[in-house]
Amino acid sequence: MTATHTFDSALALKPSPVRAGHYFGVTSPDYWNMVGPFGGMTAGIVLQAVLSHPELLGAPIAITVNYASAIEKGAFEVQATPVRTNRSTQHWTIHITQADANGMQQVNTTATVVTAARRETWRASDIPVPQAPPPAEVARMGIGPSGVAWLNQYDMRPISGHVPTKWDGSGDHSETRIWLRDAVPRALDFASLASMSDMFYPRVWLRRAKHVPAGTVSITTYFHAGNTELAAVGTGYLLGRATGQRFHNGFFDQAAQLWSEAGELLATSNQIVYFKE
Amino acid sequence: MTATHTFDSALALKPSPVRAGHYFGVTSPDYWNMVGPFGGMTAGIVLQAVLSHPELLGAPIAITVNYASAIEKGAFEVQATPVRTNRSTQHWTIHITQADANGMQQVNTTATVVTAARRETWRASDIPVPQAPPPAEVARMGIGPSGVAWLNQYDMRPISGHVPTKWDGSGDHSETRIWLRDAVPRALDFASLASMSDMFYPRVWLRRAKHVPAGTVSITTYFHAGNTELAAVGTGYLLGRATGQRFHNGFFDQAAQLWSEAGELLATSNQIVYFKE
Repeated sequence: MTATHTFDSALALKPSPVRAGHYFGVTSPDYWNMVGPFGGMTAGIVLQAVLSHPELLGAPIAITVNYASAIEKGAFEVQATPVRTNRSTQHWTIHITQADANGMQQVNTTATVVTAARRETWRASDIPVPQAPPPAEVARMGIGPSGVAWLNQYDMRPISGHVPTKWDGSGDHSETRIWLRDAVPRALDFASLASMSDMFYPRVWLRRAKHVPAGTVSITTYFHAGNTELAAVGTGYLLGRATGQRFHNGFFDQAAQLWSEAGELLATSNQIVYFKE
Repeated sequence: MTATHTFDSALALKPSPVRAGHYFGVTSPDYWNMVGPFGGMTAGIVLQAVLSHPELLGAPIAITVNYASAIEKGAFEVQATPVRTNRSTQHWTIHITQADANGMQQVNTTATVVTAARRETWRASDIPVPQAPPPAEVARMGIGPSGVAWLNQYDMRPISGHVPTKWDGSGDHSETRIWLRDAVPRALDFASLASMSDMFYPRVWLRRAKHVPAGTVSITTYFHAGNTELAAVGTGYLLGRATGQRFHNGFFDQAAQLWSEAGELLATSNQIVYFKE
């Protein structure tokens, strides 16, 4: 008997016996961030609800998750609704709710997902693969005294753009390159790819070398892989790159890409992040 | 008396007297694309519904629009719901519906919007402004015999990455740089900025110099401007840049940026596009 992976435990959803697309879950302490679950884990749960739905068509193409308010420790509910099913694409709306003090379900997360039946076509990538030494030659990051649980769940090997060690305002760029995978090996799937797309710490910290409060407001990830490409990765490392784009009056956006070790671009992701001066 | 701008006519929404956030509209022939309205116009309408809502907090930060099925010529309805209002951010879900043959409203567009009350903070941009000659030195594109109505509504001056004139498979990059504004001058606002973010033709045409069927499935735009920055642009040109990223089995994504003529990055946008071999 093998132990259940922490990611699978955190993803576990129990379907409602009466409402299609309605699921019950519980937050995982293993993927806890500062004031709520790691946002990538929440994206994984959104996707898991869609992928578990009996009416699912195809595989995920796009996911947008809006973090409307912090998810609190404990039980939550997910509703995934296929609002439109076409011949080869399907459009989903999803929300996560939790009971308030009066027992009323309140929305804390909204999301949309597009799934599609893909066909083999011409392929190309117009983003060059960043140069990087092999993962074995890059030191694994320790999480230090931060006590942020979800960081323990990943094996992160930053190549460049480390979290600053001196918060002295000396930052001059916003790019991080990193090798990453689950700390306990687990074969890559869509839920873990969605989660890993939110792996990058707030670019404003790097750009300014200043530790200001920051949190993702909305993330959009596009999947450029099917089951064949995911299977080819298996438990291997992904090469991630993230850069800031525009920092303006309390919000900034960051763009990220994830490649397989063999150099296949598997996902591109963008997010807009709140920050405080 | 001044004539109403075609964009304002197309944006016109009549609020329901009984349902908050419910609006009635009619598609505009002026912004017609091949088999439905120009997707940018649809994004503008989504945003207009949010911005017209009596409970609106702040200004738009992010919008995601999913084109679930073609909008048909004629009447449509929009429902914009503020699902969560925090101290300084507000989360919206929006859908556009049209009556089917049986008079039932069917969803053709889903969307989410985040609005926020912004505060002045430190600013920076990590994407360099592309080099470009001034708009007056760049020829305006003619729409030629395509008969695509919405193209007539914009003054587009491609600097590089023109629509191929020979469909001979000779493409080798996916970047377009362009000056653009409304053909009939109109001061920039959030709805027109959302619309212009979808201005770029499918990157697969340029990349392959092959005219394959293609259509946007989902677009996400982040706004990096407030009313002050929009007012500074007025009726001036925007400098746009778009590049393809990953083309894979029937879908590709493209990233776009829009700067003011003065070099301020006003919006960043990403979309995932269906294409047929």
